[in-house]
Amino acid sequence: IETKLPKVGTTIFSVMSQLAVEHKAVNLGQGFPDFEPPQPLRDAITRAMGEGRNQYAPGIGLQPLREQIALKTERMYGHKLDANTEVTVTSGATEALFAAIAAVVRAGDEVIVFDPAYDSYEPAIELQGARAVHIPLVAPTFAVDWQRVRDAVTPKTRMILINSPHNPTGAVLSAADLDELAAIVRDTEIVVLSDEVYEHIVYDGEQHQSVLRHAELAERSFVVSSFGKTYHCTGWKLGYAVAPKALSAEFRKVHQYLTFCTFHPAQVAFAEFMASTPEHYLELPAFYQAKRDRFRELIKPSRFKLLDVPGGYFQLVDYSAISDKDDVAFCEWMVKEGGVAAIPLTPFYETAPGTHLLRLCFAKSDATMEAAAERLCKL
Amino acid sequence: IETKLPKVGTTIFSVMSQLAVEHKAVNLGQGFPDFEPPQPLRDAITRAMGEGRNQYAPGIGLQPLREQIALKTERMYGHKLDANTEVTVTSGATEALFAAIAAVVRAGDEVIVFDPAYDSYEPAIELQGARAVHIPLVAPTFAVDWQRVRDAVTPKTRMILINSPHNPTGAVLSAADLDELAAIVRDTEIVVLSDEVYEHIVYDGEQHQSVLRHAELAERSFVVSSFGKTYHCTGWKLGYAVAPKALSAEFRKVHQYLTFCTFHPAQVAFAEFMASTPEHYLELPAFYQAKRDRFRELIKPSRFKLLDVPGGYFQLVDYSAISDKDDVAFCEWMVKEGGVAAIPLTPFYETAPGTHLLRLCFAKSDATMEAAAERLCKL
Ligand SMILES: CSCCC(=O)C(=O)O
Ligand SMILES: CSCCC(=O)C(=O)O
Repeated sequence: IETKLPKVGTTIFSVMSQLAVEHKAVNLGQGFPDFEPPQPLRDAITRAMGEGRNQYAPGIGLQPLREQIALKTERMYGHKLDANTEVTVTSGATEALFAAIAAVVRAGDEVIVFDPAYDSYEPAIELQGARAVHIPLVAPTFAVDWQRVRDAVTPKTRMILINSPHNPTGAVLSAADLDELAAIVRDTEIVVLSDEVYEHIVYDGEQHQSVLRHAELAERSFVVSSFGKTYHCTGWKLGYAVAPKALSAEFRKVHQYLTFCTFHPAQVAFAEFMASTPEHYLELPAFYQAKRDRFRELIKPSRFKLLDVPGGYFQLVDYSAISDKDDVAFCEWMVKEGGVAAIPLTPFYETAPGTHLLRLCFAKSDATMEAAAERLCKL
Repeated sequence: IETKLPKVGTTIFSVMSQLAVEHKAVNLGQGFPDFEPPQPLRDAITRAMGEGRNQYAPGIGLQPLREQIALKTERMYGHKLDANTEVTVTSGATEALFAAIAAVVRAGDEVIVFDPAYDSYEPAIELQGARAVHIPLVAPTFAVDWQRVRDAVTPKTRMILINSPHNPTGAVLSAADLDELAAIVRDTEIVVLSDEVYEHIVYDGEQHQSVLRHAELAERSFVVSSFGKTYHCTGWKLGYAVAPKALSAEFRKVHQYLTFCTFHPAQVAFAEFMASTPEHYLELPAFYQAKRDRFRELIKPSRFKLLDVPGGYFQLVDYSAISDKDDVAFCEWMVKEGGVAAIPLTPFYETAPGTHLLRLCFAKSDATMEAAAERLCKL
């Protein structure tokens, strides 16, 4: 059988997590917290199962959950959503990204992505028979060069895929960036897909610049978010996409045949918890900022050079002082010999710049951070 | 925005369930049990959440769960599977069907499907830029006319999609059918996708003829199954696909970017429960046969004519004696005026034969069946 995805192997996240297990390394690779979701959420799932919420949820998601998502969106970004026609619950943000791409991108289309780009984007684009057009972010802040975007737009450009806070770099878009984007897509048919799964993890008092704050962009955008990132439960696989009615209608056509619906008891639980405990996500920036700062403190004595982290829960570090291996080779060496799993950046580039950077996840308990730092400081 | 799926509206299952709620009808439409999954399964999910199994599972599924699936498959069908390379856990059978199609079907290909065909098949095929070639099953037993299949095969045929026990008709394939299929695909590149989500619900002492019983077919088939159907938890969205290593590798490339993994605590729970309680699925035929027979008994006094039900949990009935409306109109009338939701067959046909048949789900408690029957007997 000839593969439809010749460039795709096993995702680097699975590869590194597998190596971490084999070599008993501290896993700062694949991005997931090693602490638990709030107890009331878990209790609510148990309660929902006991109350017979074990059959299909509505395909578009439970009404009270969609309403909570709409309420939160208005509270955070001042953007009113119609929960019935503009919000769709998905089996994680991954499904939402795939469904948005499958809903509007056609064979022969082009989709602009920014490198380093999360690794699910390009295969989802290629499965539509479309092509990803890669624009590198500009180191060391990984800013977007909007002139390059303007130059890359062609009549075939169907979508621009942005991601802020950005994975793997932690860069965040500014309000001025959104204005640049709006000017580029104005009077075109280009749809924006905005991956905002780290929307609640922005540091140093800054506000997350959701495209939903930008009325003109909101009119033509899919915005994808993740309960896993916000509520410390990446393994529950709950996410959502919001988009104007016409885009949501196309999205739902695909979603209903991709997974139909997602784990029903968790939808009940999140609807309750979001209503009772909005402070959870309001306190998230401070919660993760403390972790970020602690982690930076812990690895300061190491030979790694720390880049700035405006958002998300990943720390980029430069290992040039330790090795001149390429980043994939260095990460393989580090998980085996150094006892810490990280994620190299090369898999997220069409043309890797050969920088000596790797990504470390600090969504970890103090004990895990300390164990990792002890090892990292020895390298 | 121009739609990529012009033939697709909201799936009939959502439409009818929505109407059932609005009109307070007894819902025998969308297929789901109105009784609960085993208590030990629910307890095991709670326990898994308490034990910190709340982050990503391995993308391909939890190892012990894949091993249980392999054990069950060997026990039921005498087919040995390598749990590491041939079994993949998915977010329900719907995702498995989509991923299998996306993994091997290319633009310009043809996929043979049998009408009436479950409604997710064709959109999944069309999203690949491929074409579904529809072959009608032959009423009243809904048997496959293999000569028509032979005639339909072209150099573009990439896949033949079979479904036994069949939804919506309840028909089952025989060992002789599988031999016919094997003869057709022999010496071709055609892949078989076998939707066997009702594999454990076959009646009257018959054995389910899984393609995995057929060594030659097993070598070129994806087989999809569903925990929701077998364990009365359609809302948990857990399914799986098995296929030989090379096909599974392609499947996994797609799956990892469709949903990555599925609800982790449920995977822990099923791995435990399948190991401790294999009698659950062994007793399922008798469990559902009692329901089938009870339901048939209850609606015998009605003016509906009952078709045979060899497998699955749906009863087809002919309503010709009640109305000459088409089936969609009749189901709309029945949910509003008759107080019972059913599923019409027309949405599952490319060219509907205009029969006066509808589908009723009998995966219901006695009380629900009785309430529905009382209403149905008045029509
Ligand atoms: C789906 S596994 C990858 C998790 C993640 O988002 C990351 O590590 O970047
Ligand atoms: C995913 S909703 C449809 C459930 C089902 O398989 C059916 O009713 O046939």
